[in-house]
Amino acid sequence: MTPTHGEPMGQVTPAPGSAAHPVRPGTGTRLDPWIGAYADRTHGMRASEIRALFAVANRPEVVSLAGGMPNLAGLPMQALAESAHELILSRGTTALQYGSGQGDERLREQILEVMRLEGIDAHPDDVVVTTGSQQALDLVTRLFINPGDVVVAEAPSYVGALGVFRAYQADVVHVPLDEHGLVPEALEETLQALQSEGRTVKLLYTVPNFHNPAGVTMTLERRPRILEIARRHGVLLVEDNPYGLLGFSGDPLPAIRSLDDEGVIYLGSFSKTFAPGYRVGWAVAPHAVREKLVLASESAILCPSNASQLAISTYLANHDWRGQIKAFREMYRERRDAMIGALGEHIPEATWTVPEGGFYTWVRLPAGLDAQAMLPRAITARVAYVSGTAFYADGQGADHMRLSFCYPTPDRIREGVRRLASVVASESELVEIFGTAAHRELRIVDPTAPDLA
Amino acid sequence: MTPTHGEPMGQVTPAPGSAAHPVRPGTGTRLDPWIGAYADRTHGMRASEIRALFAVANRPEVVSLAGGMPNLAGLPMQALAESAHELILSRGTTALQYGSGQGDERLREQILEVMRLEGIDAHPDDVVVTTGSQQALDLVTRLFINPGDVVVAEAPSYVGALGVFRAYQADVVHVPLDEHGLVPEALEETLQALQSEGRTVKLLYTVPNFHNPAGVTMTLERRPRILEIARRHGVLLVEDNPYGLLGFSGDPLPAIRSLDDEGVIYLGSFSKTFAPGYRVGWAVAPHAVREKLVLASESAILCPSNASQLAISTYLANHDWRGQIKAFREMYRERRDAMIGALGEHIPEATWTVPEGGFYTWVRLPAGLDAQAMLPRAITARVAYVSGTAFYADGQGADHMRLSFCYPTPDRIREGVRRLASVVASESELVEIFGTAAHRELRIVDPTAPDLA
Repeated sequence: MTPTHGEPMGQVTPAPGSAAHPVRPGTGTRLDPWIGAYADRTHGMRASEIRALFAVANRPEVVSLAGGMPNLAGLPMQALAESAHELILSRGTTALQYGSGQGDERLREQILEVMRLEGIDAHPDDVVVTTGSQQALDLVTRLFINPGDVVVAEAPSYVGALGVFRAYQADVVHVPLDEHGLVPEALEETLQALQSEGRTVKLLYTVPNFHNPAGVTMTLERRPRILEIARRHGVLLVEDNPYGLLGFSGDPLPAIRSLDDEGVIYLGSFSKTFAPGYRVGWAVAPHAVREKLVLASESAILCPSNASQLAISTYLANHDWRGQIKAFREMYRERRDAMIGALGEHIPEATWTVPEGGFYTWVRLPAGLDAQAMLPRAITARVAYVSGTAFYADGQGADHMRLSFCYPTPDRIREGVRRLASVVASESELVEIFGTAAHRELRIVDPTAPDLA
Repeated sequence: MTPTHGEPMGQVTPAPGSAAHPVRPGTGTRLDPWIGAYADRTHGMRASEIRALFAVANRPEVVSLAGGMPNLAGLPMQALAESAHELILSRGTTALQYGSGQGDERLREQILEVMRLEGIDAHPDDVVVTTGSQQALDLVTRLFINPGDVVVAEAPSYVGALGVFRAYQADVVHVPLDEHGLVPEALEETLQALQSEGRTVKLLYTVPNFHNPAGVTMTLERRPRILEIARRHGVLLVEDNPYGLLGFSGDPLPAIRSLDDEGVIYLGSFSKTFAPGYRVGWAVAPHAVREKLVLASESAILCPSNASQLAISTYLANHDWRGQIKAFREMYRERRDAMIGALGEHIPEATWTVPEGGFYTWVRLPAGLDAQAMLPRAITARVAYVSGTAFYADGQGADHMRLSFCYPTPDRIREGVRRLASVVASESELVEIFGTAAHRELRIVDPTAPDLA
């Protein structure tokens, strides 16, 4: 049967069942005629818990302590608008044209200036500009991970990284962190155990500064130890550092990459120190890896946006970006203080980390409470958070929740924690009366909501 | 040994050889200590021929008939500059913030208007905005291709698509095209042969309009036939259509997607009809596939750039984008005429396609000439093209070259073809004297040049 123009083939018997490629019986449905055709990696794809949460959490009446959106109200919009105007007038045919697959050379030089604040000494050739640092992580994983390879990551770990590792069919093995960051002894033990099991461990993924979600920072003393353990086991260390310049006191710690230019891939981003809407991040990689990263990026997107790159390059050249970061730090510190103060006042029966920078605190609920099961009730009480379960590859974490203090005002943060306190109180009562199993409920699922954690 | 700050570990014996994961003996080198750690897919990565060419081809003294860069001189820069200014002032905190993983809703509605010009009737929910249509192709391939799966593609085919298929370890099987596009009988025969060999064919990749590199267009009559053959064999058709609105005469042909909303994934782009520097493309996919595309894109980049999307949305809302496309068509037609005229005048011993739109003509060299071997001599004569070998997965194509007429002025195009004629003439002489093998040379390789074909 030949379809004709204007006559959709939606009613035709779906083809895959009868076709050149075998499909598993019963998997071809009217809902998805291609269900038998997906690659193996696709079967593991699912919406993250955070994604499912966003549509409801973003209603204006809800105080969202869930998202990781930076607060952009402090940006100099008037000056940025004038920059954008000037950029198109003076360099329009460059800004609107294809560019280099590796990224704009001037911007790569400026990125070196940014990284110098954390002790990194590199060459513009070492830098690959990407569509946010998320793309850099995707490309690194693409280069190194065969299905079944192991990625070692902190427990808990960034939900977006866990998604990437799953997309490439990696097995994530978690290693505990404490208030000083990833625990070296636990890392050593885990790598030895994996080695004796004959597993192939490719990457160690860490967020050393103002960890998402744990809010802790890897100490200066631990950094070379972690690096040495990784190198000794032949594991490439991926240092993901979106928040490093957003510390609330003192100078930034030297990046792990500042200790080693062969054993570390460093990921950076302008999303938290300037603005995420341009989607500009970067990777710094050992020379041979960098060459492959560029090839992989060209295959994935041809080249990053010149318009975005030149906008950021112009911002860095013409504005006091260090002063802007200082202003962000002060804003976020005030919000951190509001959240920590409110937790102490309203939910003293919980415990939490006190982050020295970044966006998040990691809260352990009173015994018996389940953050995932409690979430629908929190939303009913007009406050949102992310259940700790989102940050593990293995189902742990229901005893924790991540609270973000980046976006709401201090007053809204305090109101949000007050609402959360009432939910925790009534949940605790329920647990006392009915035990811990009774209050488990179905998760809220909204597949249209973005995952921006 | 514990590294200390400021002491790079580049001199330490590379770890992978002694480590948790076994590496192939002898593959760990000082040049790349991680060479034993790459994923299988990474070993097939290499710079395309086009990428290798760009650094030299872009020297000002060279007339480049090689690149696929659109000519942006006709864009209304003053008005675009004012739009950019207004956008930051009025919607800055949205434009600079994270957005939806699927893409801005208003832009997706506007994309429907664009696609309606080619007969496509869709819903905003069917559209996924991506970082250029290259990313859409990467994500589609990611969703469907297991290593060893077959992708059927035209012979020749877009070099950037071949790179994506290789990156996911697909086997590309070429099917001939003629002046009416992909040949249905050849497609039927190929799919039957693959089926009888027990191969798993997942995708049929086609550029139906103003083909890159062949310059031909799939006729109206063939479109439903091609679609029917693909569906009958259970093969998802990927319709890549960056040039469809750039036809030099008459109305656009209806897209294959206009015939079928379940068996086709359609890829669109603003790179050729507006500007590539924003990196905004899109996919339209069957509902269930679209959901998975959004998940895959969130994993790859979190979300497309709001700044880019809103800039394009503002352009579509405030400017006469249809008039701009008309102006582009007229500009490119004049350049096509210049090229075809010059070919007839200066290289009548070759044959070529006469494209009715788009950017490229596909030239068959006189017998015995080798486009790949001839290229260094052409560059020495200050003219660049792309050897036909770039557009095949299997080493064919040395008898062809792709000439682009999109970027240089008509005068430069004529000058380029004159230079090319002198190279062809002297090569033909050499072939007469020494035969065809004597003039083969090493390829020019410059790993820093971007692939923008």
